[in-house]
Amino acid sequence: MTDRVVLAYSGGLDTSVAIPFLAEKTGAEVIAVAVDVGQGGEDMEVIRKRAVDCGAVESVVVDAREEFAADFCVPALQANALYMDRYPLVSALSRPLIVKHLAAAAKEFGGTHVSHGCTGKGNDQVRFEAGLAALFPELKVIAPARDYAWTRDKAIAYAEEKNLPIETSKKNPYSIDANIWGRAVETGFLEDIWNGPIEDVYAYTADPAEPREADEVIISFVKGVPTALDGRALTPFQIISELNRRAGAQGVGRLDMVEDRLVGIKSREVYEAPGAIALITAHMELENVTVERDLARFKRSVDQRWGELVYDGLWFSPLKKALDVFIAEAQEHVTGEIRMTLHGGRATVTGRRSEASLYDFNLATYDTGDTFDQSLAKGFVELWSLPSKIAAARDRRV
Amino acid sequence: MTDRVVLAYSGGLDTSVAIPFLAEKTGAEVIAVAVDVGQGGEDMEVIRKRAVDCGAVESVVVDAREEFAADFCVPALQANALYMDRYPLVSALSRPLIVKHLAAAAKEFGGTHVSHGCTGKGNDQVRFEAGLAALFPELKVIAPARDYAWTRDKAIAYAEEKNLPIETSKKNPYSIDANIWGRAVETGFLEDIWNGPIEDVYAYTADPAEPREADEVIISFVKGVPTALDGRALTPFQIISELNRRAGAQGVGRLDMVEDRLVGIKSREVYEAPGAIALITAHMELENVTVERDLARFKRSVDQRWGELVYDGLWFSPLKKALDVFIAEAQEHVTGEIRMTLHGGRATVTGRRSEASLYDFNLATYDTGDTFDQSLAKGFVELWSLPSKIAAARDRRV
Amino acid sequence: MTDRVVLAYSGGLDTSVAIPFLAEKTGAEVIAVAVDVGQGGEDMEVIRKRAVDCGAVESVVVDAREEFAADFCVPALQANALYMDRYPLVSALSRPLIVKHLAAAAKEFGGTHVSHGCTGKGNDQVRFEAGLAALFPELKVIAPARDYAWTRDKAIAYAEEKNLPIETSKKNPYSIDANIWGRAVETGFLEDIWNGPIEDVYAYTADPAEPREADEVIISFVKGVPTALDGRALTPFQIISELNRRAGAQGVGRLDMVEDRLVGIKSREVYEAPGAIALITAHMELENVTVERDLARFKRSVDQRWGELVYDGLWFSPLKKALDVFIAEAQEHVTGEIRMTLHGGRATVTGRRSEASLYDFNLATYDTGDTFDQSLAKGFVELWSLPSKIAAARDRRV
Amino acid sequence: MTDRVVLAYSGGLDTSVAIPFLAEKTGAEVIAVAVDVGQGGEDMEVIRKRAVDCGAVESVVVDAREEFAADFCVPALQANALYMDRYPLVSALSRPLIVKHLAAAAKEFGGTHVSHGCTGKGNDQVRFEAGLAALFPELKVIAPARDYAWTRDKAIAYAEEKNLPIETSKKNPYSIDANIWGRAVETGFLEDIWNGPIEDVYAYTADPAEPREADEVIISFVKGVPTALDGRALTPFQIISELNRRAGAQGVGRLDMVEDRLVGIKSREVYEAPGAIALITAHMELENVTVERDLARFKRSVDQRWGELVYDGLWFSPLKKALDVFIAEAQEHVTGEIRMTLHGGRATVTGRRSEASLYDFNLATYDTGDTFDQSLAKGFVELWSLPSKIAAARDRRV
Repeated sequence: MTDRVVLAYSGGLDTSVAIPFLAEKTGAEVIAVAVDVGQGGEDMEVIRKRAVDCGAVESVVVDAREEFAADFCVPALQANALYMDRYPLVSALSRPLIVKHLAAAAKEFGGTHVSHGCTGKGNDQVRFEAGLAALFPELKVIAPARDYAWTRDKAIAYAEEKNLPIETSKKNPYSIDANIWGRAVETGFLEDIWNGPIEDVYAYTADPAEPREADEVIISFVKGVPTALDGRALTPFQIISELNRRAGAQGVGRLDMVEDRLVGIKSREVYEAPGAIALITAHMELENVTVERDLARFKRSVDQRWGELVYDGLWFSPLKKALDVFIAEAQEHVTGEIRMTLHGGRATVTGRRSEASLYDFNLATYDTGDTFDQSLAKGFVELWSLPSKIAAARDRRV
Repeated sequence: MTDRVVLAYSGGLDTSVAIPFLAEKTGAEVIAVAVDVGQGGEDMEVIRKRAVDCGAVESVVVDAREEFAADFCVPALQANALYMDRYPLVSALSRPLIVKHLAAAAKEFGGTHVSHGCTGKGNDQVRFEAGLAALFPELKVIAPARDYAWTRDKAIAYAEEKNLPIETSKKNPYSIDANIWGRAVETGFLEDIWNGPIEDVYAYTADPAEPREADEVIISFVKGVPTALDGRALTPFQIISELNRRAGAQGVGRLDMVEDRLVGIKSREVYEAPGAIALITAHMELENVTVERDLARFKRSVDQRWGELVYDGLWFSPLKKALDVFIAEAQEHVTGEIRMTLHGGRATVTGRRSEASLYDFNLATYDTGDTFDQSLAKGFVELWSLPSKIAAARDRRV
Repeated sequence: MTDRVVLAYSGGLDTSVAIPFLAEKTGAEVIAVAVDVGQGGEDMEVIRKRAVDCGAVESVVVDAREEFAADFCVPALQANALYMDRYPLVSALSRPLIVKHLAAAAKEFGGTHVSHGCTGKGNDQVRFEAGLAALFPELKVIAPARDYAWTRDKAIAYAEEKNLPIETSKKNPYSIDANIWGRAVETGFLEDIWNGPIEDVYAYTADPAEPREADEVIISFVKGVPTALDGRALTPFQIISELNRRAGAQGVGRLDMVEDRLVGIKSREVYEAPGAIALITAHMELENVTVERDLARFKRSVDQRWGELVYDGLWFSPLKKALDVFIAEAQEHVTGEIRMTLHGGRATVTGRRSEASLYDFNLATYDTGDTFDQSLAKGFVELWSLPSKIAAARDRRV
Repeated sequence: MTDRVVLAYSGGLDTSVAIPFLAEKTGAEVIAVAVDVGQGGEDMEVIRKRAVDCGAVESVVVDAREEFAADFCVPALQANALYMDRYPLVSALSRPLIVKHLAAAAKEFGGTHVSHGCTGKGNDQVRFEAGLAALFPELKVIAPARDYAWTRDKAIAYAEEKNLPIETSKKNPYSIDANIWGRAVETGFLEDIWNGPIEDVYAYTADPAEPREADEVIISFVKGVPTALDGRALTPFQIISELNRRAGAQGVGRLDMVEDRLVGIKSREVYEAPGAIALITAHMELENVTVERDLARFKRSVDQRWGELVYDGLWFSPLKKALDVFIAEAQEHVTGEIRMTLHGGRATVTGRRSEASLYDFNLATYDTGDTFDQSLAKGFVELWSLPSKIAAARDRRV
């Protein structure tokens, strides 16, 4: 039986050229799978047809935007996932979703191989292949960029030679990955880490330095899931999209950092994630109000590990699953509303309210109504300090 | 022999009144110790004299600004210390320094007791008393606000009755603690956590929403210690002060949060820390460039624990010392320069350079000069994924 | 209405005397609650009657042995809970169970207060009161030993004066707490930490140095719950009891350590926990076989924190609940059998088998059948080492 | 210039054959380096000559026993390093030491390559190559077993063909690695994890089940370094050696476990480490006496990470260095004596004493002399419980 390669298809030059290239190289039939995670750009139907025109025997497009928001972005939000305290895991979240749909297509169409366009020095190859190893380990992986040293110049030459229905003239200096959770940009001049980004790099966010009117939004959460904006019930996808627009218009969510890649090198990355940053900021403050101190302290280490695992391609790992149930339990009472001002690149919480609040006005106030029994403090302080006190006495003695 | 009470003296109403009150209550002599940690306000000599005028037998003022910056703020910077990912430990840093000077004064002047103005529901009582337990455990502590339920109203009545040389008419609605690392504000209307702060609350920072010219600064670090601004060599105190002014003028460093106090309650806190936030932002990015990945990942948990310990009053604890040496070792190569734009409430890194950089252009670039051997990736990815793959196969099997 | 004190009743001198003492001191009616957690000793009915004879208006005995085993010991087993890597949390586990039954009795009988016999320098006061604060915060706590400086000598005098039906002559030099998970012993001569324990201290374990025949046992687990011994299906309580007997007969599970108490002091403790130590040893090895590496590594820190929380009296805390769900998820595949030799104080695993095993003979073997592709290793090793390599090169350069 | 291969030489069949094989395969000259880490067996001079006889142009033997004990075993002891709570890192400790001497030989003799005998599915290849990447990254690595699929059978055939001066007839069924910190054994029948080890497997330890007289030893430590046995000042190497003998004679330190290898598989390992287990047991108890609680709790996670890093081949990594300084600081007061009984496979602490003890008899005792102020406990317990209490009240309310 003929081999069949399931190709993660974007509609762009590289993966379009990969269709005839893979067929030629391996003798296999190519099944193109394009997944809409809110990356914008061309119509998915146009993309679907292009794959057929390039020679795919099957071409599938999946509108996974609601699924991506609910099952991948919301867990990241609940984990306050910021790799290296900064990066909200934009690409790292979409890869396991795409893997899921590649594996499903392989099952449906009898795929024997999977192909992706990642290079051998990035994180995404790991995310694709680790995900496939977990979901469909029998599939063999072909990564032309890595395994055949396939480059953009070769792709252009090949496209022109084969007369493929794909634009080859436009040279985009930026390497971009985008979805509703954010947008990542790499480009030559940013590889000098002393260079700052220029305005041209950004697409989701307006210049935060431009004067404009502030925007105020109230975000509602139920058990850590965002459920409404300004009182309008919406799906997670709708909430993220609207916040991308509104927070993006205020320049919120630009990030510029040197980052530790899984393959062992440091790279320079520029991101913009207006909706993600606004939501994480709101969610963290609602946790401050509703999550008990010891749980909150331990959750920080769980959150950090969750972000590392997902960044490192281990979405389908046993540890990830166990951290998920911890986080879900911690979200039990993360219900309430956060009022936030979006302005000048800042997403600033100005108010919070929750039926499940642990903030107790009467214990906290210094005014009338104070119910805190200060006489308890002396004993607490003395025993709290006792181990340090004994150790300090020992240090003086020895 | 007469007892002698060493009083942590601020110059304000409460601690001024405490001088005759303590003398009367305990029969002891009172030694006032005022420590300048950059809190601003009155001249220290005025404060010194006021204590004498209120009846102190000794009145000491200590200019500890350079010491505070070098020995307390710089370690916090190296730990990127942000309690609950937000609060740069403003008050928590000054308390152990003040304790050090109270203990020194007790030694010099034969103190038998120490007195502070903290209440029984805050963190500062713990920081004072845990510090004293470590440095001078023989001293007995008197906390009039907590132990004698001493209030502001009682203090005013007492001051008027005793005709003390201290202003009692001006009612300041804000409870403030300030030093060069930042400024904390509590006040009645903020105890309703749905209320946002008003502009009147702030003193270190201008309104970030006001249009103004951006400011660009280059911060130099040597082994994690800030050493220069825009090429001018300065002390840590000078750097923090200048950044307070420059970042403050751009509205950088305002914080508004619900916080977990050590005594077990949640409270609402508003802070402004322009210099601290600018420095921590710069320092974190320089670590991204110069600290190896595994060390950086583990350091996050060390940093978190360091912040919790210091917040919780355990500056002089054995664990704090051991975390300090870890952090110092991790700073060995945190040397270089960060270029940063201060504008509109944002402190944004735009460039970084370092002789000790681990960013390797040739390994990172996708252009000419790439030295990364992509053929290594396949084996890496397969073994990296192997445990998840075996576990997933088991899950399907069972 | 008359106050009613629910008393944690052991049947011993101190709590028997507490019945009339509390009534006299507070004017309240006393409700005695004795909980059987497998501590052995007197018949529970005898204990029930004694409380009545001492003046209790209600006297309740609860056979909680199966509940204790299933709901308190099994979770500790799944967490491999060994405080300070040694102590299997014997007393720390029974206290929250007793609290649950005290709270239930308070609800049933209209209790307004709770009383326990703990002193003010131990851990158990915290476990009682933290538990009650969570389950029934309206109850006021009376701890005669702590709050009224009530001592054994006073108790004896009081018993004789009141002619209470309780033995006062027998002076037991040991302070003991026991349940099916183990037995704790404190006594005067062990307070010198250079003194070793003597044979007289032990009751659950025979002298491991005595020559005897070894015992071999096969322990079956399903999802981390022990379900059978040598193929006989048993309840957790039955399994623990039988292993206490069989491992105890071989001298397994004696512990002697200096321990960090929650109240800030170090104390000397001697324990014996034959069943617990045998089960934890078996469970840890079954986890080695069935739990994936990253999950196992992270679980160690979860297990440690779980043990600290339970030791520290926070059984009913939100963090404990969230750690519980993590641990439960990690137990999903901890199913299989462990063969173990009990002999000479040692519980030694000699075999393990599991349908859910992650040990793959073909990947592990060096003999015929090896399926591990060694060609993958080179790429893995090079990228695994790359961060250290870049850092070492930087260190030489700088 | 001719290439020169520095070979990690054991004197055994595989590495003896590798000498002419490498020369033939690569045209290089071979420099044999044999390091004595206390593995026992043949005289080092015999080994040195054999390498020459097999064709090495240089043959170096290094007596590294004292260095290994002081610089590799003692740090492991201070970290209480037990990978997966069991394995004292026997082989993982010697590899970085051997790497150091290979790198030194390469510098001295102009080596261009390094060769080791490890396979591609074990941990030791990683430890060798990660170490070399850090110490001497220019050296190229040749691993015949992995890179040329070189097997024992091929080695025997090659030895006979070339008439090499090495015994090929004796078939040892065991694969062994040994040094003074312990001994690791793998063999075919143990690859069935339901099989128990047989007595024949062991060489460092007598059968613990054999009746014999107990042995009592007093181990002295200064700052976490073992310095004397029974009052006789000894070097770390001497102490480990003597305890190997004495604890080994009592059957202490046998281990049998399923282990997570770095390359992603689980393997079955049998170890014996009498000296290491006795020393770690003693050291842990001395830490219980002399290390403050919070430091001890955090150190457990540092110790765990240290063990993982060293197991994973990252001895020369930046994180390892930073953990080292933490651990060194924590050892500051780990000075004192531990009395221990070695008997029947058990190393049991029976007494501990230290000038730097934090155990305070007067705070701990329940007898005369008690200085603990129990009145402090009530306030402590109430505030300690407050967060759980507030959370439980919220849970009931919501």
